[in-house]
Amino acid sequence: MIRVNHERFLARLEELACIGATPDGGVERIALTDEDRRGRDRFADWMRQAGLRVEVDGIGNQFGFLEGTAAGPPVMIGSHLDTVGNGGRLDGSLGVIAALEVAAALREAGDLPRRALCIVSFTNEEGVRFQPDMMGSLVHAGGLELERALDVVGSDGARLGDELQRIGYAGSATVGRIRPHVFVELHIEQGPLLEAEELQVGVVEDLQGIYWTELILSGQANHAGTTPPGFRRDAGLAAARIVVAAREIADATPGQVATVGSLRFEPGLINVIPGVAKLTLDLRNADAQRLDEAQREIEARIAEIAAEESCEFERRELVRFTPVVFDPAVVELIEAAARRQRRGVRRMTSGAGHDAQMMARICPTSMIFVPSIGGISHNPREATRQEDLLAGLDLLATVVEELCNAG
Amino acid sequence: MIRVNHERFLARLEELACIGATPDGGVERIALTDEDRRGRDRFADWMRQAGLRVEVDGIGNQFGFLEGTAAGPPVMIGSHLDTVGNGGRLDGSLGVIAALEVAAALREAGDLPRRALCIVSFTNEEGVRFQPDMMGSLVHAGGLELERALDVVGSDGARLGDELQRIGYAGSATVGRIRPHVFVELHIEQGPLLEAEELQVGVVEDLQGIYWTELILSGQANHAGTTPPGFRRDAGLAAARIVVAAREIADATPGQVATVGSLRFEPGLINVIPGVAKLTLDLRNADAQRLDEAQREIEARIAEIAAEESCEFERRELVRFTPVVFDPAVVELIEAAARRQRRGVRRMTSGAGHDAQMMARICPTSMIFVPSIGGISHNPREATRQEDLLAGLDLLATVVEELCNAG
Repeated sequence: MIRVNHERFLARLEELACIGATPDGGVERIALTDEDRRGRDRFADWMRQAGLRVEVDGIGNQFGFLEGTAAGPPVMIGSHLDTVGNGGRLDGSLGVIAALEVAAALREAGDLPRRALCIVSFTNEEGVRFQPDMMGSLVHAGGLELERALDVVGSDGARLGDELQRIGYAGSATVGRIRPHVFVELHIEQGPLLEAEELQVGVVEDLQGIYWTELILSGQANHAGTTPPGFRRDAGLAAARIVVAAREIADATPGQVATVGSLRFEPGLINVIPGVAKLTLDLRNADAQRLDEAQREIEARIAEIAAEESCEFERRELVRFTPVVFDPAVVELIEAAARRQRRGVRRMTSGAGHDAQMMARICPTSMIFVPSIGGISHNPREATRQEDLLAGLDLLATVVEELCNAG
Repeated sequence: MIRVNHERFLARLEELACIGATPDGGVERIALTDEDRRGRDRFADWMRQAGLRVEVDGIGNQFGFLEGTAAGPPVMIGSHLDTVGNGGRLDGSLGVIAALEVAAALREAGDLPRRALCIVSFTNEEGVRFQPDMMGSLVHAGGLELERALDVVGSDGARLGDELQRIGYAGSATVGRIRPHVFVELHIEQGPLLEAEELQVGVVEDLQGIYWTELILSGQANHAGTTPPGFRRDAGLAAARIVVAAREIADATPGQVATVGSLRFEPGLINVIPGVAKLTLDLRNADAQRLDEAQREIEARIAEIAAEESCEFERRELVRFTPVVFDPAVVELIEAAARRQRRGVRRMTSGAGHDAQMMARICPTSMIFVPSIGGISHNPREATRQEDLLAGLDLLATVVEELCNAG
């Protein structure tokens, strides 16, 4: 069995968290900034120290290869190094540093594995500065042409390709060259379920589809005192009724969540009936048919409520990712390994997007989740108990060992 | 009968609208700015031209006196010259220019009235820059000490007393010296009722009480995908349910209106459950008991909803004006005069605050409303048909004539 080095793994996680560290204990390494470059440089150094062959492709994805004794595509593991603004130290970093540790330990074990191992850190998973998110894995999987990705202009006006050049990560390797035998990503759950159920490991069997919509309701701004109810065209009331309706429909649909994260009234004055209300709607479900049904129901309610409140509305679809189902054989292999290690384990759905969902387009894929304390993520308070981090690392090592040495 | 000069009245309204005119046809003469000074100067000139004795008191209220043949307190009419930001040309100005025209016409008629007439423009009715609103009339009526009013610091950091000095309107007359025989204010309705009922005149018999509350709901910001419904503490959903509940309670309470004019979510991101929601609640009713009941009901619902959504809340009372009932005899006199002039007339409740509500503390008071096109006010599009403006002026003249010559 591979002997991973717990101390080295934890020390590297710690050291990486110092790159882009924020005063409140968080980390900010937004994609293709100077902090991202420093994180990438450190990771590249560590890969070379581990004796891996390092490669960077045209979208800046970083790879480290350990040869196998047999021919054929490698087992691939990894995640991403970029963070959200004022984010945490584990989202992405855990999966990359754990992959590094597994590769290093395999190398140190002496005998090469039967099947080659490739570790990866994908470019711009978070999509904070450059959209779409999960960009590096999307380009790798063939879902976005390299040239289009390089031409993306960021929220600060910078062109992605220029920034990639600037930080020295416009690599020469052909994008998408590697079609892995299997891809496994270790990640924090970013939700409360494992902690609530006192489990150490989640095996991700599917990923929610995500529909994002922006809705603008228009009524008539008017005096809050002199306008009787029958004369009101209150865009704010219409919006509030839609927020409530979205939750009711989600509660009535298995596996469905609906979130209105942003809602603003205009003109936004205490004594003026809102003339305009702008809101966003985030709908998710792992079941594609139910997700579509929920969306249709909510849209019907939006039209009804707008009519009842004498408001007009415009809607704009911002994102539409259909659900992803991971490979049952990989899920089963991970779950069985976790049980052998006597971990409390469950299968689960991921509510967040991950590079693994892009890789699932081109190879058998699954993910390993470890608990998030309080379910908190994208936040400086993002944390996981040390024993859970190590459980995740040990499980990843075992899974890689099985995958690399299986027939 | 007093012969008011329609052309002069309309020309002065027009001329006044040029002072602080905005490009879109509106007017901005915020209290104690240079534009306010220019409006005041013009009004003072016109009063002197009309042969009125001009006085300014310590809070900057401008008075013009026409002597009577008998002793005793004067009949007082007027309104205010200040506007909101990007406001209209009639709110306040109509009542002041109509009062000026009535006084000028009475003077030109030759014989002095039995009872003296005093016209007034009160300082800072709108309360945009310096709070509270209706300040000049509030100080006049003894509801706020002069020294406290002068020490008020505005939204731009300026001290009210200093600005009054700067524009030359820190007058020497004692505030509140005049306790009128009766006060009548002509004003635009700022609501849709007269237009909807095709009436020309509203006689205001009471004024809604106004309760303003700010509410801050606190839940837990969390990931929109990974947080199942049972784990959510969605401050935005709680806020939306409160908006809906406020409207339901208002609809079930006679004469009650409830408005949530401002609502914001934090962090306000599409894929994050709102951790904080801030909203304002504006409750109005002309019936004090029903207003109190509606407030109690809404507060009970706020507590219930917050508990159901696992949110905490803080509430802060911003304004609490109890309803005002105007003098029945003055209301009756105005209504009878309007009927004699064959105007379509109704009694009504004012949903907006007015200087008249402060004057009602110290003398018999009522108001005359004329229609607002589309119910629009506090807006460059604020307008009233010319025949309705003149109907208001003629009615005010007749009412003043009766009040000044009655026993």
